[in-house]
Amino acid sequence: MTELRTLKVALLGCGNVGAQVARILIEDADALAARTGARLQLSGIAVRNVNAKRDVDLPQDLFTTDADTLVKDADLVIELMGGIEPARTLILSALRNGACVVTGNKALLAQDGPTLYEEADKAGVQLSYEAAVAGAIPILRPIRDSLAGDRITRVLGIVNGTTNFILDQMDSTGAQFADALAEAQRLGYAEADPTADVEGHDAAAKAAILASLSFHTRFALENVHCEGITSVSAADIAAAKDAGFVIKLLAIAEKLTDADGGEGVSVRVHPTLLPREHPLAAVRGAFNAVFIEAENAGELMFYGQGAGGTPTASAVLGDLVSAARRIVLGGPGRTETTTGHVPALPIDAVMTSYYIGLDVADQPGVLARIAQLFAEQGVSIEIMRQTIHRDAESNVESAELRIVTHRASEAALAATVEAVKGLDVINSVTSVLRVEGV
Amino acid sequence: MTELRTLKVALLGCGNVGAQVARILIEDADALAARTGARLQLSGIAVRNVNAKRDVDLPQDLFTTDADTLVKDADLVIELMGGIEPARTLILSALRNGACVVTGNKALLAQDGPTLYEEADKAGVQLSYEAAVAGAIPILRPIRDSLAGDRITRVLGIVNGTTNFILDQMDSTGAQFADALAEAQRLGYAEADPTADVEGHDAAAKAAILASLSFHTRFALENVHCEGITSVSAADIAAAKDAGFVIKLLAIAEKLTDADGGEGVSVRVHPTLLPREHPLAAVRGAFNAVFIEAENAGELMFYGQGAGGTPTASAVLGDLVSAARRIVLGGPGRTETTTGHVPALPIDAVMTSYYIGLDVADQPGVLARIAQLFAEQGVSIEIMRQTIHRDAESNVESAELRIVTHRASEAALAATVEAVKGLDVINSVTSVLRVEGV
Repeated sequence: MTELRTLKVALLGCGNVGAQVARILIEDADALAARTGARLQLSGIAVRNVNAKRDVDLPQDLFTTDADTLVKDADLVIELMGGIEPARTLILSALRNGACVVTGNKALLAQDGPTLYEEADKAGVQLSYEAAVAGAIPILRPIRDSLAGDRITRVLGIVNGTTNFILDQMDSTGAQFADALAEAQRLGYAEADPTADVEGHDAAAKAAILASLSFHTRFALENVHCEGITSVSAADIAAAKDAGFVIKLLAIAEKLTDADGGEGVSVRVHPTLLPREHPLAAVRGAFNAVFIEAENAGELMFYGQGAGGTPTASAVLGDLVSAARRIVLGGPGRTETTTGHVPALPIDAVMTSYYIGLDVADQPGVLARIAQLFAEQGVSIEIMRQTIHRDAESNVESAELRIVTHRASEAALAATVEAVKGLDVINSVTSVLRVEGV
Repeated sequence: MTELRTLKVALLGCGNVGAQVARILIEDADALAARTGARLQLSGIAVRNVNAKRDVDLPQDLFTTDADTLVKDADLVIELMGGIEPARTLILSALRNGACVVTGNKALLAQDGPTLYEEADKAGVQLSYEAAVAGAIPILRPIRDSLAGDRITRVLGIVNGTTNFILDQMDSTGAQFADALAEAQRLGYAEADPTADVEGHDAAAKAAILASLSFHTRFALENVHCEGITSVSAADIAAAKDAGFVIKLLAIAEKLTDADGGEGVSVRVHPTLLPREHPLAAVRGAFNAVFIEAENAGELMFYGQGAGGTPTASAVLGDLVSAARRIVLGGPGRTETTTGHVPALPIDAVMTSYYIGLDVADQPGVLARIAQLFAEQGVSIEIMRQTIHRDAESNVESAELRIVTHRASEAALAATVEAVKGLDVINSVTSVLRVEGV
């Protein structure tokens, strides 16, 4: 074999994922050289504290606090620090120096992606970020390359393992949200401050990235309608289960056509009912999956581990090898195309089915009055089921009404729910949830 | 927008898939131009009979019987004729002329892939074949690029829709193989001569391709151990179901280490029991899925439509857009790496669990004698279950014994089965099937 050239790799950040990336770069150096045609030499790891304890035992002389100097001297830069700054400045500096950049920084991409993409285009180098969405699952490259000749119409993703674990716990054990969250924290699936996960912010950043690649148009975080899972109750889960559904937090990006034939894309994150036989319903625990509908390919699903140091490192290394191969073979890099020019749609433009739970008076004629009210609002009912509960001690009866609607607009549904609340036979509206996959 | 360059696309073959590719090239011309930076002009379609009836209405002047001339003038060649010749000669001619080639010809790739890959390498052009395995599912590109920094340890694929449909029918309706095959033929899922599908030959060609990319080593059809599904009975399916399993025809490529630490790869196709909770068990009807285990990524699954004109056309177009982008951006193409150098292992080297069904005499002590015999052969039993049937009319009792073993070698298992047959208490060995996913 002829002498291989050496490519210098700078690693920024050495947390959960970064430590595994460093380990693999060192342990698998020969295999990586064979696959790229160049030796990938880890030239240094920039951290805040060079003496901090790491998950993996790594040579101490690799660590430095001087990220700037490390980046200036690198052919390939891996950014795994997270957060906006200094990650943003370091990535821009690397791209301007002609280095290819691999990052898993979904927050930065969702907030300021276009600035980074433009800098990479200008420099003719690769900026890749497979690790930013759904951890180990190859999903961005298939969307960008494999489906490049198709038209994606809808993406439904379980892209946050923490919330999927919590909802799955609630579904399988009947636990309340707070207890399932505590269990997730105990097992290390949720952080001490779980806000970014349970409020849907993490999923929203990933939704913006998935939507941008799927529809060849740049969508930012402010285009994403976001609702978390904190208000999903054990009763919601039980009622959904009883009706043959499971509740998942979905990241959804969907092409919609209005009455005039104009196209737009709705990007949103919210708790969603899915039929139990839908492929995404079987995604349990902290696993992730992305379900894609395309005009020609039909239905596709990509399933795997969405987080964790080692799985996410696999995605980082895949991007790194691809970038190194491009450098070895020559020629400029390839970025996503953004020639779609479709507008982001507000949540009001979305038509979905809804599940509505009502606590109603146990009187004759209640069903008919509610059905009449739905009809007046133009919301068509697909399924309506009444259950009568009798309290064994007090002998008091209460009635529960569960309704699944046909597709309706957010506005029509909201108006209907408001009107329903005004009926004297309604004790309370117990839940309003969107349904997909029917 | 500046004037775009034009790339000439030659299409060879206009069957089920080819007709859809032609339709999309014409209908989506603007979108494809936006995504590639070049106009993809369908310069002609080579067919045997220019007047044959097609699935799609296409301009008559595109058709020609002169494939040679068409190929000579093309920047991109799509080969969808199938079979070995003239496909092989035309692809080699296209590569030598510097054209990128997209093909779905699994038989040719499995038989003579290395010749094609070497010609593509020499010419510095892309040869891509996503459509050859699992139709619309992006699986080859994720293995080649996204997992390029990982080590794949095992691939389990449902890669033949016809046999999955037949086995699924047998599982859900209790039908015998012959009846399920007839139903598949009636619905167009199986051909009049179903040999290539039901004997596993189609899956074997795909297994060779999957193994080659997964283990960076070229495996040919003769390296694949192949068993079809013709001998799978309704009783096998029922017994598997009763024990919590489903029977699938799997294409398996697996890295094995022998006692001396030497590495090899077993590539094989055979009916296999899978636990019902395994992600592949939920793949119903004619759908395909590929389940991958990698050292870092962990478990991944890719699911979608494995056949059909329009879905497979999506994979062809994805390859075409990628090749066109490479031409526009400049620089040589990228092919798979084959630096793995691991040997193909014979089926004898494989250790799997086995399911064995026995029709035994209803006598005391039969279980103990059979358990003793397994122990003598060094095959460890995981589960042993006896069921007594009493015929309502004749009042005659018969006993059925179902055994699931721990991992054992093919040789040890064969010796055990031979020895079992020699016992006077055995009426017959009703099934011997391999188990995966436990």
